[in-house]
Amino acid sequence: MDTQARSAEARRVDVLLRGGTVVTMDAARQVWAPGSVAIEGRQIVAVGEVSELDGAYRAARVIDCTDRVIMPGLINTHTHMPMSLLRGLADDLRLDVWLYGYILPVEREFVTPEFCFLGTLLSCAEMLRGGTTTLTDMYYHEEEVAWATVESGMRGILGETVAKFPTPDARTYEESLRYCQDFMERFRGHHLITAAPAPHSLYMTTPDILRETTRLARTYGTTQLIHVSETALEVEDWLKDTGMRPMRWLEEQGILESPVVAAHCVHVNSEEIEIMARHRVGVAHNPSSNLKLASGIAPVAEMLARGVAVGVGTDGCASNNDLDMFEETRLAALLPKVATGSPTAVPAVEAVAMATIMGARALGIDKEVGSLEPGKLADVIVVDQRTPHTWPLFDTTGLNVYSQLAYTAAAADVRHVFVDGRQVVADGQVLTVDTPQVLERAQHLGQRINRFFVERQDSVLDKLVDIGGIERQETFEIQAKAVLNDRAAFEAGLAHRQVHITGHTLRQQYDTYFDFGDAGQDRLRYREDQVIRADGAKEPIYTLTLTGPAREAEFEHSVVLSRARFTAPADRSLRFYREYFAPAREVEVTKHRERYHIRYQGVDFAVNLDRIVEPRAAQQYIEIKSRTWSEQDAARKASLIGELLHLFGATDEDMVLGEYPDMLG
Amino acid sequence: MDTQARSAEARRVDVLLRGGTVVTMDAARQVWAPGSVAIEGRQIVAVGEVSELDGAYRAARVIDCTDRVIMPGLINTHTHMPMSLLRGLADDLRLDVWLYGYILPVEREFVTPEFCFLGTLLSCAEMLRGGTTTLTDMYYHEEEVAWATVESGMRGILGETVAKFPTPDARTYEESLRYCQDFMERFRGHHLITAAPAPHSLYMTTPDILRETTRLARTYGTTQLIHVSETALEVEDWLKDTGMRPMRWLEEQGILESPVVAAHCVHVNSEEIEIMARHRVGVAHNPSSNLKLASGIAPVAEMLARGVAVGVGTDGCASNNDLDMFEETRLAALLPKVATGSPTAVPAVEAVAMATIMGARALGIDKEVGSLEPGKLADVIVVDQRTPHTWPLFDTTGLNVYSQLAYTAAAADVRHVFVDGRQVVADGQVLTVDTPQVLERAQHLGQRINRFFVERQDSVLDKLVDIGGIERQETFEIQAKAVLNDRAAFEAGLAHRQVHITGHTLRQQYDTYFDFGDAGQDRLRYREDQVIRADGAKEPIYTLTLTGPAREAEFEHSVVLSRARFTAPADRSLRFYREYFAPAREVEVTKHRERYHIRYQGVDFAVNLDRIVEPRAAQQYIEIKSRTWSEQDAARKASLIGELLHLFGATDEDMVLGEYPDMLG
Repeated sequence: MDTQARSAEARRVDVLLRGGTVVTMDAARQVWAPGSVAIEGRQIVAVGEVSELDGAYRAARVIDCTDRVIMPGLINTHTHMPMSLLRGLADDLRLDVWLYGYILPVEREFVTPEFCFLGTLLSCAEMLRGGTTTLTDMYYHEEEVAWATVESGMRGILGETVAKFPTPDARTYEESLRYCQDFMERFRGHHLITAAPAPHSLYMTTPDILRETTRLARTYGTTQLIHVSETALEVEDWLKDTGMRPMRWLEEQGILESPVVAAHCVHVNSEEIEIMARHRVGVAHNPSSNLKLASGIAPVAEMLARGVAVGVGTDGCASNNDLDMFEETRLAALLPKVATGSPTAVPAVEAVAMATIMGARALGIDKEVGSLEPGKLADVIVVDQRTPHTWPLFDTTGLNVYSQLAYTAAAADVRHVFVDGRQVVADGQVLTVDTPQVLERAQHLGQRINRFFVERQDSVLDKLVDIGGIERQETFEIQAKAVLNDRAAFEAGLAHRQVHITGHTLRQQYDTYFDFGDAGQDRLRYREDQVIRADGAKEPIYTLTLTGPAREAEFEHSVVLSRARFTAPADRSLRFYREYFAPAREVEVTKHRERYHIRYQGVDFAVNLDRIVEPRAAQQYIEIKSRTWSEQDAARKASLIGELLHLFGATDEDMVLGEYPDMLG
Repeated sequence: MDTQARSAEARRVDVLLRGGTVVTMDAARQVWAPGSVAIEGRQIVAVGEVSELDGAYRAARVIDCTDRVIMPGLINTHTHMPMSLLRGLADDLRLDVWLYGYILPVEREFVTPEFCFLGTLLSCAEMLRGGTTTLTDMYYHEEEVAWATVESGMRGILGETVAKFPTPDARTYEESLRYCQDFMERFRGHHLITAAPAPHSLYMTTPDILRETTRLARTYGTTQLIHVSETALEVEDWLKDTGMRPMRWLEEQGILESPVVAAHCVHVNSEEIEIMARHRVGVAHNPSSNLKLASGIAPVAEMLARGVAVGVGTDGCASNNDLDMFEETRLAALLPKVATGSPTAVPAVEAVAMATIMGARALGIDKEVGSLEPGKLADVIVVDQRTPHTWPLFDTTGLNVYSQLAYTAAAADVRHVFVDGRQVVADGQVLTVDTPQVLERAQHLGQRINRFFVERQDSVLDKLVDIGGIERQETFEIQAKAVLNDRAAFEAGLAHRQVHITGHTLRQQYDTYFDFGDAGQDRLRYREDQVIRADGAKEPIYTLTLTGPAREAEFEHSVVLSRARFTAPADRSLRFYREYFAPAREVEVTKHRERYHIRYQGVDFAVNLDRIVEPRAAQQYIEIKSRTWSEQDAARKASLIGELLHLFGATDEDMVLGEYPDMLG
């Protein structure tokens, strides 16, 4: 058949990407050079040699791809898009300082639906510019994330985060789960969006939460997203608490019976890798983030060898700090080499597979995207090959083009991007996001966040952070304080058959409170805590504690739910801290404390009986405290504290609010 | 003084970079935001606040740097520029396979002065585009490298490589040293180029070579460049041979008395780091290359803690595969975190210092470049901050801009580059290199290299490589072969008082030679080698050896110097290899070999007495062999072999050339 005749019966298509090096990433890893790809509507209709497609297809639009790679769009298997707005806020810090000192306070203050929408647009602009066509997100207000993703024209597996702590969009996990279900319902069957549950991690959820998210995932036929074994400590703790490593525990709980995408998997052993292979757990490997947070290097070569589908992820901008899939793909090829000691580990072709078809497999969408094959959705990118940092291109091993992509290609080399058949980047310009406007809005928001820091935190927390040693102590505490008017009633309460005393100490506490003249904002407490032992010897413990003023909630009987605190061992003198923090005001409180650890109705409480020595106070005080995680739990504990107050003889009139320096100062 | 009055007495300058975030990298790490930099002639004349410089300077040209960083140009402390022409030729291979199977053969064939000039232009175009202003090179034909560097307008510390092996520009190291001295003489006092000696490494040089390069460096007042402790094996071998680790040995030899820039230093221990600090050895840290070749992760945090000046390097494109200093700087910050387990190791500001002022210190040029300070040479770059992958910018810690540069900035973000006061990049366009023409020429050369591979090597070596297990065995061998006509004379020779027999084995060797029909090109030998022990038991060793046809040199008495060979343990059957390699012709040779290891005049030789069993040959043959490294050494050994042949009773008429299948087949 001559060209004329074939051309007469040529099929009409929308777009012909013509004359590039077509890297199909199909099962045979076919490369057509030069080759073409024909797109019609949402789909790829043909992939092959230039001459073959020239004859068979007539395109409304032909894009010359000479000296360019035509390949599947990159698939980012793990990120937190809105966090691009927190990029570079605080780096090179200890993980806990970074998280509890910076990220969580800012998230509490700023993470609104608008924040999530804007941050998603910013991230999508960056990812599209760099050739990513599918992303996997875990954040809050995920419906906003979804609408912004749709606006940018990207494909997304979007997970609403569920955690046992209050989050920016839910005071309790029950709220999160309701939000998640509504979100999944709303986006059911959407052509770009898969709404999914994202239980944060084992340590930030409970078995209850995981049962619920698994039920949701099954009901809607989706995968669920979770962080697993990112740090060694997390694994150790889990092992200590449950006797099982995390992946083993997930298997035991039946969570792996339906699809799961596990982010990180830095600390998984061979047994766990077998479990992952058996249950087809998809892995999101985030090399930059794992390096930056010093989490470790994931055993990628072993996971691949055992047939686990490992995709590439960028993680969020707070820990990367960008969303450059070419960079992550490069690291996905480089790190296993040094980790195994073999330069042959994870060759370029395998890294490119991780960023495309294997990532799709990890997410369970490899039937639809991840390779250039007729019938698949048209998620296609065109990448410049002829630049001073990528040229020349050899063909000595059949694998050279993969080397070019894995070891030299950069985000800025991407020329065109199609998602679902729609062109969203042309000649390096993102068509779907008004980038200058998004950058402008990000700047304004960034300035607000900056002020929040400089004004509210810089003076105390940052300085606390600077001198190191910060540790998370209590996150949420439910507590009540009352004047003790009837010591006998208190003793009777302690002796009640439902009150079990599990511990008792006597302490002399010398507290110095630093206030900063900002009307009850941050307050820093330097405490010399002397436990008085039976033999009379005293062992002082020095701590520095930062308290914020806010209360999360109030319950009956003046029971309050208080916020996260930060505590550091104080290894320097009071004089040092005084000079260093330069407080506006100091209050000294010395007290004698009897501390009882009790168990009541199966719950642990600390009960403090305080006698204020300096400034001398007539009354004694009783404090009852317990840690808490969820709304239900807080409500239950508030109610138990009410009962205990009653048992200890305290009435509502005896209740007091605030800390000692507020009451006495 | 009001603006008017100040303006009247304003000093005239050539260029004012105005209104950016000026990251000075001076000793105080001052940042001016917004700030300006004034350039006059080759120098920076002022750095400071916008308003201050606006009043004090009137510029012929003002460049608006709003939302851009103005910073010192990046300093690449280690590369091999011409190797950009070999980018992606062969990746993900074992180090020895990569080096001996690909890089060395191609270098022998293609590395001409023209190759080095073109490759340097390509590399300079890439580096300038990515904000590098100073580079440190080690390669061959370094004068060509220098002229191309000058043409591109970059600053270079350029090292002519000296090695004990023949190199592309010198058959012997004596030639290299002469070339090096001429080169240093020619570029003495050049405003952009410092010509330096670059002894390759300890294992590729000799103490003689190092003494000479050190003398040269002292004479010309330059540093010298050398690879040190890149791999663990290299260190082990050196320790075994000399009883000292490499840095300790360098100190002992007095090499560290004058300035040295040591590339890699992956495997240096604390004692060596102390030595480096004491002698102010500069380090070129090449993170990508060390990952890709699985060399390891250098102890950067410890080196920095002990005050060693560690710069950032890209290494050459054959092991990276690009020259992206932002990428290397990012890894210089990331890898120490995972290596030490601490996310606070090598914070962003320190990584940026490594890429600028500390790199300059490592090279001994920190008085001239590396920071933005009045009086320093104007090597300045302007980098876009307001992009979707870098925005927003915070100012919460005073270090945020360093995070932006280390963790998010990309080569493509560089807008302007000045070297020595001359603008060489404007709006992302390289002004000094005709990039399209260079890419075109690189393509043509690349195609020639490609053909060389596909035609000459693909059929045998690549396939040998593919099945793995290749090892370097002999690199250069000086040898002679003769018919043995007088056994008694041979025995007498062995018994001569100057001949010391150090070993003796009896072997039965079954050799199968594969020829490939290309007129004496590659030949593959499958050998079953049975050492016959005293008790008669036989232990077969199977090897596969690739021999090239070429001889490097011939000496008197038909003594020849033969080229590198490749040997692999043959762990598969002859049948497998026959099918796999599909030779055009096979020759089988079975022989009985008596092997004597002897020492004569302080030199080790192997002497083989061969009786050919199949095809049956009347004569016996005697072979004398020894390894060699340099021209002088080869000449001396050729002469000793001549003497031995005489001792063993062989005359010139008895001499034969070629391998057994050539003689018998």
